[in-house]
Amino acid sequence: MSSSDSLSRRLLLKALAAAPAIPALLGTTIAQAETPTPLASWNDGPAKRAILDFVRATTDRASPSFVPQEERIATFDQDGTLWVEQPIYSQVIYCLDRVPSLVKAKPELANVEPFKTVMTGNLEAIGKLPLSDLEKLIAATVTGMSVDEFRAEVTAWIPKAKNKRWNRPYTDLTYLPMQEVLSYFRANGYKTYIVTGGGQDFVRVYSGKVYGIPVEQVVGSPGGTSYGYGKDGKPFLTKVPKLLLNDNNAGKPEGIHEMIGRRPYAAFGNSTGDQQMLEYTKAGDGVRLSMLVLHDDATREYAYGPAQGLPESKVGTFTQALYDEATKGGWFVISMKNDWRRIFPFE
Amino acid sequence: MSSSDSLSRRLLLKALAAAPAIPALLGTTIAQAETPTPLASWNDGPAKRAILDFVRATTDRASPSFVPQEERIATFDQDGTLWVEQPIYSQVIYCLDRVPSLVKAKPELANVEPFKTVMTGNLEAIGKLPLSDLEKLIAATVTGMSVDEFRAEVTAWIPKAKNKRWNRPYTDLTYLPMQEVLSYFRANGYKTYIVTGGGQDFVRVYSGKVYGIPVEQVVGSPGGTSYGYGKDGKPFLTKVPKLLLNDNNAGKPEGIHEMIGRRPYAAFGNSTGDQQMLEYTKAGDGVRLSMLVLHDDATREYAYGPAQGLPESKVGTFTQALYDEATKGGWFVISMKNDWRRIFPFE
Repeated sequence: MSSSDSLSRRLLLKALAAAPAIPALLGTTIAQAETPTPLASWNDGPAKRAILDFVRATTDRASPSFVPQEERIATFDQDGTLWVEQPIYSQVIYCLDRVPSLVKAKPELANVEPFKTVMTGNLEAIGKLPLSDLEKLIAATVTGMSVDEFRAEVTAWIPKAKNKRWNRPYTDLTYLPMQEVLSYFRANGYKTYIVTGGGQDFVRVYSGKVYGIPVEQVVGSPGGTSYGYGKDGKPFLTKVPKLLLNDNNAGKPEGIHEMIGRRPYAAFGNSTGDQQMLEYTKAGDGVRLSMLVLHDDATREYAYGPAQGLPESKVGTFTQALYDEATKGGWFVISMKNDWRRIFPFE
Repeated sequence: MSSSDSLSRRLLLKALAAAPAIPALLGTTIAQAETPTPLASWNDGPAKRAILDFVRATTDRASPSFVPQEERIATFDQDGTLWVEQPIYSQVIYCLDRVPSLVKAKPELANVEPFKTVMTGNLEAIGKLPLSDLEKLIAATVTGMSVDEFRAEVTAWIPKAKNKRWNRPYTDLTYLPMQEVLSYFRANGYKTYIVTGGGQDFVRVYSGKVYGIPVEQVVGSPGGTSYGYGKDGKPFLTKVPKLLLNDNNAGKPEGIHEMIGRRPYAAFGNSTGDQQMLEYTKAGDGVRLSMLVLHDDATREYAYGPAQGLPESKVGTFTQALYDEATKGGWFVISMKNDWRRIFPFE
């Protein structure tokens, strides 16, 4: 490299440093220069190697599996893949937390199920409520208000609500190794999407701050909205109790097609609800990457399956059949215990 | 500016020239340097001035109405706003064109409506088919195949199908002034979306080539898909006759919320089907831009309304009430006749 090339390069890097969105567009050279140790929280092993190999194969212009930047899509399940899902999904906690103020506003609800049971605070009894009651609970707590009111309510709840085991906000409990995967993919020109069974509007409230993922790259289970006018004549959208798409199982590839319109090149999940997304991703042409996070670390996080003889769990089921499909289909299973040197950013 | 600043700037500009996607991220200074005459096909007047003023107000960091780049969303109706919609929507032509090969594959359809009438080629009779027959036609021609097959069929159709008046492919009949608006918005850090009542999968086939808009930025009326497995065991998505969203009228802001999750800062339309999108856009905080294309140029394109006494039309109705709402609400009406110096790129 000549000295003027070197100067040019330094000046360019300096300019780029001031514009954080740019490095991704310049491809791997600068991105790698700025990320000297990608996946620093990962132990060396087949999972880490699979990620590095995949990104190199699809972003190196000399590679036969090179993928043009506009087609680089990577999708990530959220609960259990990007952050802790035990003992219960954070969004369910949100719905439960909303009940007291709901009952305060409409006291007649105090004697009506499922609100009556929820008000007792007895988590075991709440866990036994029938599905129809849970649907009533969701309808009552996340619909009937404007999308702006909902956003404001969730925004206010997020910093106050805490996971009891770690005594930290849920948004602190993201997996550092997966945050590194998100950054690494983006630094290499991939658009990263969350594809979650959770409520789309809920996840969008914090996706930017927590994962660096903009709202338009969150594909979830979207609730319907209804367009109308306020007393001031101004139009607004009201959240209505209508599920537009159940973004689980077959709903994940269907939702990906509707919302993104491209088959992902890489997909990450952790449960049977992610099976179809990972199959669909892996079945595409060229080199594709499908990975499953296995929760096998009871000490640092949780251990549940029932794959590999781990205890069954009410949320995030990872069956032995799914494990076998991963092995057979050339997916990779990420062992939290063995593949992750650190789990949480705060450790 | 010192001479080393000047060198730095020249080197940066050189590096940027090699990476065309970058200038947008650096804001207005460089973008304007590279676009010496934005909106070159527009005549000076209130419409052109409104666009220039809006972009300056929302992208100049010193402006009280500055909008951070991640929130810069501009939405564009397609038919009648970005390209010609007369005498009939191109997608309807596509469905009609598909009928002969459909009847060839299933000869029993030749005596069944609406296929019988379509096979006569009598456009007047076809135009009188009831809505239920048109729905049958759409179901038969755009569903029942895999999403990959559909994409391949439309891709093959596009270059062959021609508009009779101009004897050119439909994709040639985009409005140059609107292409300039798309480029100008993108050069200033806006994400441009198509928000169309047309079939989402249909428009996605050519949106990149024709408008520079990637598939994930096309919001249309999405048809449902169904996940399944082929004989080879490989998963694929089949298009099914289920409309997930009617992306017209109130469906436009509802679809924008579902698919993008942000209220646009600017929106462009041309008919009553765009009214709610324009109202919703204009009702947001800060400076917003809502614009309607009025087809008042019978010589160079078409003239239809019935706003301003123009003849009524079966497609793209622009009522006097819509015109009045535009005036009252501070929207801008674009007169094709007066505001556009050139209409088509091929002129």
